[in-house]
Parts: sequence; structure tokens; C-alpha cells
Amino acid sequence: VKKIDVVRAILGERVHWAPKKSGAQAFAPTNIALCKYWGKRDQELNLPINSSLSVSLAGKGTVTALNVIADTQDLVSFNGKPVEPGLKFSRRIVEFLDLFRGLPAVRFHVDSSANIPLAAGLASSASGFAALVLALDQLYGWQLSQSELSILARLGSGSACRSLWNGFVEWQVGTQADGMDSRGSRLPEVWPEFCVGLLLLNTAEKALSSREAMERTKATSALYSLWPAKVSADLPVIKEAIVARDFPLLGKTAESNALTMHAMMLSAWPPISYFLPETIAAMQKIWQLRQDGLPLYFTQDAGPNLKLLFLQKDSDSVRSCFTNLEVLQPFVA
Amino acid sequence: VKKIDVVRAILGERVHWAPKKSGAQAFAPTNIALCKYWGKRDQELNLPINSSLSVSLAGKGTVTALNVIADTQDLVSFNGKPVEPGLKFSRRIVEFLDLFRGLPAVRFHVDSSANIPLAAGLASSASGFAALVLALDQLYGWQLSQSELSILARLGSGSACRSLWNGFVEWQVGTQADGMDSRGSRLPEVWPEFCVGLLLLNTAEKALSSREAMERTKATSALYSLWPAKVSADLPVIKEAIVARDFPLLGKTAESNALTMHAMMLSAWPPISYFLPETIAAMQKIWQLRQDGLPLYFTQDAGPNLKLLFLQKDSDSVRSCFTNLEVLQPFVA
Repeated sequence: VKKIDVVRAILGERVHWAPKKSGAQAFAPTNIALCKYWGKRDQELNLPINSSLSVSLAGKGTVTALNVIADTQDLVSFNGKPVEPGLKFSRRIVEFLDLFRGLPAVRFHVDSSANIPLAAGLASSASGFAALVLALDQLYGWQLSQSELSILARLGSGSACRSLWNGFVEWQVGTQADGMDSRGSRLPEVWPEFCVGLLLLNTAEKALSSREAMERTKATSALYSLWPAKVSADLPVIKEAIVARDFPLLGKTAESNALTMHAMMLSAWPPISYFLPETIAAMQKIWQLRQDGLPLYFTQDAGPNLKLLFLQKDSDSVRSCFTNLEVLQPFVA
Repeated sequence: VKKIDVVRAILGERVHWAPKKSGAQAFAPTNIALCKYWGKRDQELNLPINSSLSVSLAGKGTVTALNVIADTQDLVSFNGKPVEPGLKFSRRIVEFLDLFRGLPAVRFHVDSSANIPLAAGLASSASGFAALVLALDQLYGWQLSQSELSILARLGSGSACRSLWNGFVEWQVGTQADGMDSRGSRLPEVWPEFCVGLLLLNTAEKALSSREAMERTKATSALYSLWPAKVSADLPVIKEAIVARDFPLLGKTAESNALTMHAMMLSAWPPISYFLPETIAAMQKIWQLRQDGLPLYFTQDAGPNLKLLFLQKDSDSVRSCFTNLEVLQPFVA
């Protein structure tokens, strides 16, 4: 099954439509996985080995403006500056747009702005592809459901399928070969006291993309085969913890899930480490604070930065321990 | 099966002997595992889950002088200074000596000196218990074989059973409940060009002993169940690499084995990390140097320090990159 087959199945006759407007704009939040997506069963469609669960960071993400242009190729810009067509950032967007142009082929100016650093493990591509899909839906007037948009966003970047909603979002692994059942859906729970602290330790673009890191882990880690079982154990516990508002259980399970993902990377060959010296120092500080009684946990994605997890009642304590911590409350507008 | 049963089985009627001398002294080298021992199937006898393989660091280790004293309790000293009887260091030695005193109970002055830092992941307890067993053998005149001494040393500290020899030593996992087949034996190969560089990043005593770290990993890591398979894959490769003098294969396999051990610890709960910020910085430097063409690998034990693995031809290059590197050639006297 190819991406274009999925697009055709979802759009139906709308695949032939021309844009209904000359321009559209959309925002999608970035999302932080509490139970990680790591490893694909289908590279073409970004179908995962396992289900995952995230929380969206309302207000943090990507705004994408899409405009039809009279040109022979797309124009991509990011944070107000043109991006060279040869760069991976542009190529991924142009290849994604190829799925939707119709005939005669429409060309676009894609102008994205993100209030998070790019490619630093902050799910910039997740919010980027989700915003792009939302903008396409508006531009063409498809009026797709959120579930359908989630599937399309996944074709751009796996975790983008979780960025169609605010709040807690579960990405169901699905079983179908065409991935029609592998998409995000929002959990009904809201948790206003739940805080995420972005601890930016290094925002340089990562040397190894998550895509490559995932593949290498799957192909070479002696520990990878236990990952699905780890997720099967953690995901229901995280969901229960959300329902029961059991923060220590949520924090513990999310931290253990993240560390297990990084553990598998360390055991890959060549070894993969997204730990920087500063990451280790911050982890040790968190563990010490927790030992001293502060209910503080963390998660880490394919980058050196940590996302601290805590409740609002402890916000002042946590802030006083970490300078340059950006505290977000995903459920408070 | 209790420790004392093993001692009785090995010593036979010699268990009733009185010391043949008033004092004895012995040296045992520390050993660095290239394929790690991690996890016990029997806590009492220190019987491992898996076989392991190490290289002894000739000249680095513990000298233990054992003298019979006319006192009601043992006297323990380390590096020339008395050690409080209540401290774990003393208690472990006194409990070990309890196995051998006979009747009337002999009391000892145990005077150990080590030229490696204590409890910093440099196998100080391995060389310590091996030297103690060698000194006991001399003092009592038992004339046990190296294999028998290896079994007795294991009762003090698991990896001590590998410190009875210089060179490459394999600890066979064994299958017997009394552990009589779980002991070290020396590999015939010598490899004069093989170098180990001790990169001491922090020599403070570790907060969590390997004993506790091992147990917690076994009890809580979702990845531990794959460890025996990892060892079964790595150990024969390391032995082949030694026979074939294939240094990159040896280095790669040893590094991957060590990282997998640390990976399992990260995935334990509470998480265990022997990484310090300096450890991560050094690892990244090694990976960069290797990418630039230097055949340099590392291993790490239950402490933040790294042991660099390289060949003598690269010794100058490696030294120029790491200040305070102590380079040892295990096969060169």
C-alpha cells in the first residue's frame, strides 16, 4: 500500500478538486508522548509497532499558511525565511504535497512558523505536518473528520497523527495493512493541574533523526523485541492513572517508558545516545528532588531536552530548582 | 545450599586445620569484564545468571596480608588505616572469614592495600576477595587448586572468581545447585598489543553497590529477560575475536555488551544510572574518534569511569586525546 492509495481512499472523488480558496492557515500543537512511539511496522505509511499516548501542548506548535502560487515549484519558508529546495525540510513537505496537488498540479507557498525549536526532540515535525494537513483541508474545502486528518498527517510524520487534538491523545496501533485504523483519538479526561516543564538544554538540530534512530534500534538492539510488551504494560497504566488522577503513577510510568526507549537506543549498534552531559545532570537532579519528596518526573524524546512532569501545586518548587524552565499547562487555555 | 557447605565440600578434613603459619600475604589483580556478569540465580552463593569473560589488569589490584592475632575479634585495615568494625567493608570480610576460622576460632588482622580506587566500578572487591582467599590458602597450607580457590573467592564477591588469574578469564555459569561448576578458568591466548586505558572521571564511592543494582535490574527492568540471550550472543564472539586477534570485533562486542547492561539499569525502577555528565562526554568523544577512524572502544562497570580498549599501535593517539589516562597492557609484565 502506497501513501497515494491512502489519500485516494480518504478523499474519494475530492482527489480531483481544485483549491476552494487561494489561501488558508492553521495551527496544530506539538505533542509530548507519555508512552512512546518507537519503531515502525510499515515505513511507507508510518505504521507503528505499538500504540502510544501523548499530551498536546496547547499554544506550542506550528502555524502554517498555505497559499496557491503561479509557479512551477513550491516555495517553502520557515519562521519567515525561505528554505532551500534541496534541504530535507523542504523535500519532506514537497513530497507530502505531491500527494494532494491534483491535475493540473497546484503549486504552493508553505509558510510555517513554530514557537518551538526545530528537530530538537520537541515534535516540531508532528505539529508541522498536522498544521499542514489542517491548512490543506481548509484550502480544498474537503471537510474531513479529525480521524481522517489524523491518518493523512501520519503519512507526513508518524507522531503528527496525535497533533490534531489538544489534551491527552492515544494513537491506536491498528492492524490493517492500509493503516485506516492507525490514528489518533482524544481521551475525554481533562487535568487542569497537570504541568509540563520544557527544560531546554540544547536546541541544536539533532545529528540523527528519530526516523533513523528508530530504524537502527529496531534492526540492531538486542532489547528491542521486548518493547511491545513494555508498551502493553505501560499504556493501560497511564490511561488508568489519567482517569484516577494518580499523578505519581502517571509520572513513574511515563518516565520508565521514556528511559526504556533510550535504553534500547543505547544498546543499538552503533550506539545511539540523545543524552548530553547536561541531560544526565538534570536527570540526577530530578531523581534527587524526588527522593527528597517532590513528585517530579520527566520524559525525554529523540533529543537531549527533558520535559518535566509535575502538578501545579509544585510549580513554584520546580521553577525554583530549574532556571529557564518553561512551564505549560496543557489543559489551561 | 549455604556457603559453609561449599567450604566444607572443598576443604574436606582441612576444615579442621589450624593455620600453618602466623602470617601470609598475597596479591590478586582486578579484572575488567568484556562480557558482563549481571544478575544472580543464587544470592547466597553468588551464582550468576550468565557466563562472563574478563581481562585481568596485571599489577593493578589488592595485596592482602593476613596475620593471626590474639584477640576476640578481627582487625581490618585498608591502605594502612584501621576500618571501623561496623562498616560494610569490615563486615563483609569478617563474615567471609567466619567460614574458615575452625575451632578454636582463629582471629585475624586483615591488612589490605589496593592501587585502585575502592567501590568505584574498578572491581576492588573482586581483587580483594581473591587476594584474601590466596592469603588464607597460604596461611592454612591447604594447597587448593586455582579452580577451588576461584569457587571460594566467588563466595565473597561473584566477580572475584575471575581474579585468580592474569589474562583473559572466563567464568562458566555452571548448572549445579552447589556451584561447583561455576568458576573461573584462564583462556590460553595472550595478546601483548591489547591495551586498557583507565579513564577515571570520578572515584567517589558509588551510591548504589553493584549487588543492589543487579538485584533491582533483575527484579524491575522490563528488558532484563533478554540479557541471557545477549550474553549468549556476545560471549562466543568475544572468544572468537580473541583467538582471531580481531580487535574491532572484540571492541564492538564488549562495548555493546556493557551498554546493554547499563541500558537495562536505566529501564529499572527506580532508574539506575552510573553515567555522570563526564561519562557521557567521554563516550561521545570516543564515538567521534571512532567515526574519525581510530579503533577505540570502551567498557563501563557499576561506576562512572570508563575503561578504554585499544591496541598498542594507537596508544599515543589515544593518550593525546585523554588527559589522566592510565594505560595498562594486561599481557606485558
